[in-house]
Amino acid sequence: MELVTVREIYKEREKYLDQEIRVGGWIRSIRDSKTFGFIVLHDGTFFETLQIVYHDKMDNFQEISKLNVGAAIIVKGTLVATPQAKQPFEIQAAEIEVEGNSTPDYPLQKKRHSFEYLRTISHLRPRTNAFQAVFRVRSMIAYAIHQFFQERDFVYVHTPLITGSDCEGAGEMFRVTTLDLDNIPKTEDGAIDYSQDFFGKETSLTVSGQLNGETYAQAFRNIYTFGPTFRAENSNTTRHAAEFWMIEPEIAFADLQDNMMLAESMLKYVINYVLEHAPEEMEFFNSFVDKGLLERLKSVAASDFAHVTYTEAVEILEKNNDKFDYKVFWGCDLQTEHERYLTEEIYKRPVFVTDYPKEIKAFYMKLNEDGKTVAAMDCLVPGIGEIIGGSQREDDYDKLLNRMNELGLKEEDYGFYMDLRKYGSTRHAGFGLGFERCVMYLTGMSNIRDVVPFPRTVGNCDL
Amino acid sequence: MELVTVREIYKEREKYLDQEIRVGGWIRSIRDSKTFGFIVLHDGTFFETLQIVYHDKMDNFQEISKLNVGAAIIVKGTLVATPQAKQPFEIQAAEIEVEGNSTPDYPLQKKRHSFEYLRTISHLRPRTNAFQAVFRVRSMIAYAIHQFFQERDFVYVHTPLITGSDCEGAGEMFRVTTLDLDNIPKTEDGAIDYSQDFFGKETSLTVSGQLNGETYAQAFRNIYTFGPTFRAENSNTTRHAAEFWMIEPEIAFADLQDNMMLAESMLKYVINYVLEHAPEEMEFFNSFVDKGLLERLKSVAASDFAHVTYTEAVEILEKNNDKFDYKVFWGCDLQTEHERYLTEEIYKRPVFVTDYPKEIKAFYMKLNEDGKTVAAMDCLVPGIGEIIGGSQREDDYDKLLNRMNELGLKEEDYGFYMDLRKYGSTRHAGFGLGFERCVMYLTGMSNIRDVVPFPRTVGNCDL
Repeated sequence: MELVTVREIYKEREKYLDQEIRVGGWIRSIRDSKTFGFIVLHDGTFFETLQIVYHDKMDNFQEISKLNVGAAIIVKGTLVATPQAKQPFEIQAAEIEVEGNSTPDYPLQKKRHSFEYLRTISHLRPRTNAFQAVFRVRSMIAYAIHQFFQERDFVYVHTPLITGSDCEGAGEMFRVTTLDLDNIPKTEDGAIDYSQDFFGKETSLTVSGQLNGETYAQAFRNIYTFGPTFRAENSNTTRHAAEFWMIEPEIAFADLQDNMMLAESMLKYVINYVLEHAPEEMEFFNSFVDKGLLERLKSVAASDFAHVTYTEAVEILEKNNDKFDYKVFWGCDLQTEHERYLTEEIYKRPVFVTDYPKEIKAFYMKLNEDGKTVAAMDCLVPGIGEIIGGSQREDDYDKLLNRMNELGLKEEDYGFYMDLRKYGSTRHAGFGLGFERCVMYLTGMSNIRDVVPFPRTVGNCDL
Repeated sequence: MELVTVREIYKEREKYLDQEIRVGGWIRSIRDSKTFGFIVLHDGTFFETLQIVYHDKMDNFQEISKLNVGAAIIVKGTLVATPQAKQPFEIQAAEIEVEGNSTPDYPLQKKRHSFEYLRTISHLRPRTNAFQAVFRVRSMIAYAIHQFFQERDFVYVHTPLITGSDCEGAGEMFRVTTLDLDNIPKTEDGAIDYSQDFFGKETSLTVSGQLNGETYAQAFRNIYTFGPTFRAENSNTTRHAAEFWMIEPEIAFADLQDNMMLAESMLKYVINYVLEHAPEEMEFFNSFVDKGLLERLKSVAASDFAHVTYTEAVEILEKNNDKFDYKVFWGCDLQTEHERYLTEEIYKRPVFVTDYPKEIKAFYMKLNEDGKTVAAMDCLVPGIGEIIGGSQREDDYDKLLNRMNELGLKEEDYGFYMDLRKYGSTRHAGFGLGFERCVMYLTGMSNIRDVVPFPRTVGNCDL
């Protein structure tokens, strides 16, 4: 069907003004007097709506006037400028066809609904202003991330979702199986007979693509993943979901410094992208969701990120221990309150904290020369705390093996990973960005359930 | 680290010729005489390699000469043109640092390896020519698809992977659970107590994002998904994987005709993108994997796709039944042999087959006025058969309900889906493109295991 979109009308108004055009969309509101009426139409392509004026010269004037909010219509008419009115133009309708009716019990009547209520109708909430904005911006952020990496010739790698290694260790995992749970096959000694499962072994949903990603970085040099990851953690917070998307770049011939430069460039790129491509949506968030959002994002995009070692950061925080629920000491994991204090109060801009104690970081992080800390980095941003975590990876076979032994990890479970240190090992580094956390950061939305189309959390798996 | 990439050298040679530069990469081959040697270096950023010449004036000449294939090095030297030689330029090395050694048992010695063998080392195979080409092109295809849809203002929707509806019906599903399989909780009447499972109900891995995608098309008008889907089918073929990626666009205010135009534009866009952005890789496939590839793709990109109804196609095929293993009759599902005959022998270009008998298609497809066929379309391409399947969706509440009743589907399982037909229903349509099948089509690779970084098939879940 040849329909002009509301986006096209707003972006290229000169082309359509005083022309007869056809538009299709859904009724946001409708009111009529005896001889004419107004429809506020939304067509899903643009944040703003389009006003339609219709008259009783139309044969179906009565039918149209009785339409309910939510109904789909196709309007033929002339786009005219309305310099006196709030909206820049309107369509004077010659014909209106009803594409699909709605009913008076349509759940999205013209009034404000709470996010809590809208979560109960996740199939309809994208029709509201707030979720139009959230999910269009989510889509743009995803694309901006691809564009950032592809412009730099990074190779996009689809790391697997179903994994046979139960040694990822980054969190609780979901089991994936085709065994009949009513009748689980057992071996002679009474254990579950996984040889009869689909893959012939125990399998789970991945918690990270990093280790697989490293194998591709050692072939393509610069790669990134962008895919779903899973955590079966029983945590019912506004920041945790059981299913979420992650971006994990991995760069070879690169150290922690390169890694931080990459993370900083990426964040700034994405911020600038949404500010440029979704100005209406970002204004909406700034006005109705998070008052300081635009100022904060613009400031981040313009600032040089600060750098501080964990050891220095702990010294700074210890002097302010009276302000914290959790007191800081060398060796402790930093809490969100500490992270936010550093980025909001001390540096007043994003800050990379580097060189954490090895005990609180993952086995694969590169040991520093002090023998106590590893070349890790967390990127902290105002308003949220940690948004990115990464590290240089241990590229020395013996040091990696030594650390695995200390932690009781079995070498045979990591054969492919050790091979990377055996055959042309290189300095390399990478980081993980939780995509939903990034969307929350850029939109000011405070609950992860409101930035995922169909959220999965403990006890919730609707639609 | 400030290293020039081999891609930059090939793309902007004038900038680097006769300059001293640093490059990092992995040794593909090395040979030396008493006083000098040659290294073929690959750095993962470009399909072509770079020749390094080194001399015994270097302090570590002996050490370098003893390096094994696969070792990682960093070379400082001058890029010089070599008009007499096979390669356009080489680096005359001043210094070579060893970044990471390799060993004589490195599995990728300079010789041809079979794809079967390389599947056993999926962490190393991306270092070979063939898989450099496959996985770089895979990455580019993914990006081209995003670019195609984003340029047209489609909203990218992440539909969920874990699903609670066991009614998707498109194939065997994997169970997702956190129940202790050694000790499955039971209710009083002996059934499995799924209320104790993570989501409080039975959950599986999705086989399609379409139904969720439709809810977003009814809000944003044009959307697409691009994410993993799963089939627990016990089929050990070269075309089936248990985990694969799908693209599923969905367009509102649109019919089957619009849907076919979208599919045709998308395929042509992606073909042109890889031909333009990966000429070296595509030449490689054409020379070593699939001789007719380039001619076939260029012809597809330049042709108008043909259109034929299922009924007409069956008439054509019935006349040629002597050529087929499976004889064609009205009502039968078309096999690959029939599809390929249509596109390769009859039309000699891609063809859309439309309006299939409702009995062999899904419940949600729009019933045609004949009451017997539905507004479905399959896109068949030379060399492969079906690559895209889609349909206009039934947008009439009563007709959809009627079809569900005929098939014994329960209305209450599809409440959200019926709501779309209740509140502002629109003509809408969409299709599914199996991403791996698309990569196979564009590269000429014949086994799905060779276009997925870490393939999951029945009995196989390595790394």
